[in-house]
Amino acid sequence: MADLEAAIQALTLEATKQGDSVRALKAQKAEKTLITEEVEKLKAVKAELATLMKQQADEQAAAGGGKMNKETFRKNLSSTLEQNMFYMPSFKIYGGVGGLYDYGPTGAAIKANLQAFWRQHFVLEENMLEIECPAVTPYPVLKASGHVDRFIDLMVKDVVTGACYRADHLLKDVLEAKIEETADAAGKKALELTLAHLDEFGAEELGAELKKYNTKAPETGNELSDPYPFNLMFATQIGPSGMVQGFLRPETAQGIFVNFRDLLYFNGSKLPFAAAQIGQSFRNEIAPRAGLLRVREFTQMEIEHFVDPDNKKHKKFGHVRPLTFLMYPRAQQMEASGAIELNMGQAVDEGIIANETLGYFIARTYLYLVQAGIDHKRLRFRQHLQHEMAHYACDCWDAEVQTSYGWIECVGLADRSAFDLDAHSKAAGVDLTAFQKYDKPIETDVLKVEPSMKDIGKDFGKTAAGVKAALLALSDDAKSAMAAELAAGGASKLGTEAGEVEVLAKHVTIKQVKQKISGKTFTPGVIEPSFGIGRIIYCLYEHSYYTREGDDQRSVFKFTPVTAPVKATVFPLLQKPEFEPYTQRVGDVLTRAGVARKVDETGASIGKRYARTDEIGVPFAITIDHTTFEDDTVTLRERDSMAQVRVPIADVGELLQKLCNLSATWEADVLPKYPAHGTTADQ
Amino acid sequence: MADLEAAIQALTLEATKQGDSVRALKAQKAEKTLITEEVEKLKAVKAELATLMKQQADEQAAAGGGKMNKETFRKNLSSTLEQNMFYMPSFKIYGGVGGLYDYGPTGAAIKANLQAFWRQHFVLEENMLEIECPAVTPYPVLKASGHVDRFIDLMVKDVVTGACYRADHLLKDVLEAKIEETADAAGKKALELTLAHLDEFGAEELGAELKKYNTKAPETGNELSDPYPFNLMFATQIGPSGMVQGFLRPETAQGIFVNFRDLLYFNGSKLPFAAAQIGQSFRNEIAPRAGLLRVREFTQMEIEHFVDPDNKKHKKFGHVRPLTFLMYPRAQQMEASGAIELNMGQAVDEGIIANETLGYFIARTYLYLVQAGIDHKRLRFRQHLQHEMAHYACDCWDAEVQTSYGWIECVGLADRSAFDLDAHSKAAGVDLTAFQKYDKPIETDVLKVEPSMKDIGKDFGKTAAGVKAALLALSDDAKSAMAAELAAGGASKLGTEAGEVEVLAKHVTIKQVKQKISGKTFTPGVIEPSFGIGRIIYCLYEHSYYTREGDDQRSVFKFTPVTAPVKATVFPLLQKPEFEPYTQRVGDVLTRAGVARKVDETGASIGKRYARTDEIGVPFAITIDHTTFEDDTVTLRERDSMAQVRVPIADVGELLQKLCNLSATWEADVLPKYPAHGTTADQ
Repeated sequence: MADLEAAIQALTLEATKQGDSVRALKAQKAEKTLITEEVEKLKAVKAELATLMKQQADEQAAAGGGKMNKETFRKNLSSTLEQNMFYMPSFKIYGGVGGLYDYGPTGAAIKANLQAFWRQHFVLEENMLEIECPAVTPYPVLKASGHVDRFIDLMVKDVVTGACYRADHLLKDVLEAKIEETADAAGKKALELTLAHLDEFGAEELGAELKKYNTKAPETGNELSDPYPFNLMFATQIGPSGMVQGFLRPETAQGIFVNFRDLLYFNGSKLPFAAAQIGQSFRNEIAPRAGLLRVREFTQMEIEHFVDPDNKKHKKFGHVRPLTFLMYPRAQQMEASGAIELNMGQAVDEGIIANETLGYFIARTYLYLVQAGIDHKRLRFRQHLQHEMAHYACDCWDAEVQTSYGWIECVGLADRSAFDLDAHSKAAGVDLTAFQKYDKPIETDVLKVEPSMKDIGKDFGKTAAGVKAALLALSDDAKSAMAAELAAGGASKLGTEAGEVEVLAKHVTIKQVKQKISGKTFTPGVIEPSFGIGRIIYCLYEHSYYTREGDDQRSVFKFTPVTAPVKATVFPLLQKPEFEPYTQRVGDVLTRAGVARKVDETGASIGKRYARTDEIGVPFAITIDHTTFEDDTVTLRERDSMAQVRVPIADVGELLQKLCNLSATWEADVLPKYPAHGTTADQ
Repeated sequence: MADLEAAIQALTLEATKQGDSVRALKAQKAEKTLITEEVEKLKAVKAELATLMKQQADEQAAAGGGKMNKETFRKNLSSTLEQNMFYMPSFKIYGGVGGLYDYGPTGAAIKANLQAFWRQHFVLEENMLEIECPAVTPYPVLKASGHVDRFIDLMVKDVVTGACYRADHLLKDVLEAKIEETADAAGKKALELTLAHLDEFGAEELGAELKKYNTKAPETGNELSDPYPFNLMFATQIGPSGMVQGFLRPETAQGIFVNFRDLLYFNGSKLPFAAAQIGQSFRNEIAPRAGLLRVREFTQMEIEHFVDPDNKKHKKFGHVRPLTFLMYPRAQQMEASGAIELNMGQAVDEGIIANETLGYFIARTYLYLVQAGIDHKRLRFRQHLQHEMAHYACDCWDAEVQTSYGWIECVGLADRSAFDLDAHSKAAGVDLTAFQKYDKPIETDVLKVEPSMKDIGKDFGKTAAGVKAALLALSDDAKSAMAAELAAGGASKLGTEAGEVEVLAKHVTIKQVKQKISGKTFTPGVIEPSFGIGRIIYCLYEHSYYTREGDDQRSVFKFTPVTAPVKATVFPLLQKPEFEPYTQRVGDVLTRAGVARKVDETGASIGKRYARTDEIGVPFAITIDHTTFEDDTVTLRERDSMAQVRVPIADVGELLQKLCNLSATWEADVLPKYPAHGTTADQ
């Protein structure tokens, strides 16, 4: 695998050089044949690179299983996940419902841990204002946000059965099948091009393409309707009157935006500040089919960082400036040259990342994911291409994690400018601006308009007040224009309530004066990191799963203590009353130390109980045996090394606390200090 | 207040004695006048008791405010809550929506803490299986649970405007107004009687009562419709077809019941075990108006403890047996004699609480609420009266907390028998039973049926197989009856697929044999503690709020470290760069110790910053000042005493960790050890 890595690096370098050479030739307006020749070379290098990268992706996805291939890896993983109730299809005894899954005891504990860690890492560390808003949301909020009009997917229906399909997914299946069965290179190429642009198609284009391939409903072979938009929000009625339309929120963000005014006040009217929310969001997917990765109800963790749009520096950017990790900027994507190791400071300094605040959150997200247990070698931050971004967005990056399903978007980080606050301000008729005082008042030249009411009254009579109002309401540009016209001795046209009038020099004086401005009023920009915790958890499962050397049946999750559903299990050797006081005592010691533990008092052998805790990724196990009665020590076993030591009960609480908050390690603080315990029950 | 308490106790005793005396006279069939006399005495005692208890309730509700009355207390509390963003009406800038509230930064943190503590106290401590299911729930699940048919309130509509009212609430308002304006005692009494039975009225009775008082729509004076049922579930459609009806779950419990089979298997097929869930539930209230206490979307924390219905003992009941706290059993309610201090062991032994498991959860709930910060003197467990319980329930108790709104139900604890599992088993056609192996197989006598196929074949020809099947399917009673008839030499009638036939002794032998039975199959009973966290939080606010002696403007919440939104705030004295490394260091020390902290770097005076943290109930504050630069110590201030000591930064992490997990106290472990800090910034 190291060879593969080296080969990829070499090819990447070659592709970059070759790309430079093509660009240079083009810039020099070199001969066309020469350019074509170099372009062909570039294509060849890239094709080879793509092959190697696919090979690497497959190998990495199966990394936990050593020599396992992707299918075996995924099968073993999912059967371990299901057997140990990490998740299960919701309402299974009633046949289940597509896109709805339950977290079982193991999965729910991992989710709770990741949420708590997120709260620590973001909310507390950054002094964020965490709030919690209801999922049920009235129509006007989601009308203003754009979701009522634009939160849609295109759908086609089986005209006989009424079964629904996502038009783009259906076309994708069709195209992939065609590519498979097409022999000639040009035809294949054309199909691949269509496939590549699939997500840019509107209803008409999708309809035309589906017709072109004479697409029928997959299950029945019946005719299909034309594609038409389906809004992905779950609709409901609030209250009994039938007059208050509502939806289940499609994202938690809107709850923060509508509270902006109060949050700003709560923060002492100071910017920047961030608000955060963890909660359920709902998307009524047309035909969910990607298992845990595309679901109809899921937990989001979202941050809205409000900032002066003219100053997106971040006070703590210095802390993350030295970090270097995999990024995939727009330029590299255009060349398909793969993600590159990039230094955060450099990325912002060179304008690859739009600003410090966005960069800061990208870096903090990187740290969160890696500390949670995501393999940093299979994590990249991919910049959105221009056409992927909403028109108002400045810059967007996705944290993508590599799995057996390919690269999965787990976190979106977007600089959304002032779009959301402007939309709600307009719709609700409420001021959602902030006022920023300058350090020193600024003195500027302004044009002051002084209407001469005596002459205005004489010449305009009843409409005089309207003329005055129109003069005072002039924009800066209009003031300049009028001043010039009047200075030239002419008349100037002025629109008033009562129609257009002609104004002369005697009616108004426009002059330049100095004015002190103490600050500015503006709608804050918003930088939004948005986490889909369900996807992060699935990726963690893939990155944490492995089987014991030489035994494919012994599954282990190498969860970090941060993530592990339980930090330690306590095993009394036998189901006998004399063990009970010790079991209770060890349990209490761990509780007092804040170490989440479970007691397994089943009569199974210790080896079997070890295997069981391995399968749910518990890092430490404590066994109480007959020696405990003599010397008050217990066996402590580490999951990945399977090493065992003997530790006094008096030490167990503090030791595990330190191991779990990572202020101590097994190698440095346990193995040298405590005697190894001879027989290993893992055999 | 102590005098009042004593007076109430004396009167309670007197009422009990007087009640006994009445019962004794009735039992002796004493003279009617004598009984009437004693009954009148009892009434007088109870009336006096009721007056004193109301007085006590008012005083206790305002206890935080010392001499404050109820209205002032509630006004001060709610303005402190709103100013500090404990909560706010949802979608306020759009005019808000009845029954929907947001948790602000302070409230959301408290909620997260209470949930984490609940998880520790119940899920981890009791090895419960915590799961997480979606809120969107398909129709068949809630049809089976009874919610589609029975989860209703009765509603009346303004026939002109369509405005909706809850029929019982409207009648309550009408009756209360009538009681107020009615002079004669008998009329008042009759109205009060109607009021007392309000919650037992059906649609017809409510309609008749509303008509009787000529009730009109309150806002418009328009006519009202007859009462009719409104289902309180939010309805929605799952998927785009319009063919899959769904609801937002009205409780989290059903998600657990439908997973019972898998959970039982996950638990090694062993009973008892408990599953738990924390999540949002939704009730589309007709016209919510009790502020935070009756909302349309709320978080539930529910436990379903599955148990052998013939053995509801609890392994850990011994741990809670000695606890004594306020309970309000059915008998005391019938006599309106108030809650009594009752010992848990006694309550179960005497059959006041139905079984050990229910008792165990009542006790654990008591401990949870008190450790969270609920005043144990204003907490009682009230048993449901017979008519309050569902027909299938064995016994129900509510944890009720006394507030300025009266006694608020915060937790419901119910022994629901096998109702839920039976309902889902029947509706889904899935076996939801458990098998319990006996310690030793039991040998019992059974009647064995042996058909004599030779004679059956001869006599019944083609229908012989049907006769055999019918014989083997006989119930135990039918077997006995047939055996008796045949032994008497007669014929016995037998229903078969092909009609009734007559069976003789030659056709079948029925004899008693010994059989070993290794265990039993049964539908488990369910004991359900169900927590409404929003209500608990509101009660905590009331029980934790007070103002500083002599200064009504200085509000404080005396949250325990378990509940407090933040455990410690860190204040650099000045906004100057030389403070920053210390601020960072103290922050890091606290994070490593697992102490949730906030840094307040605003330039406000320390006194002002203290007042600010008091208002959100932060127990400890740490100030970094110029002395810190010299001797590496900081000022540590305790919220309620306002006392300050000087502590080395090196000690701060461990010390606060211990103070927060309650393994150290301010009085015993801080004051004696660290030097007092002279000037108190609170002045």
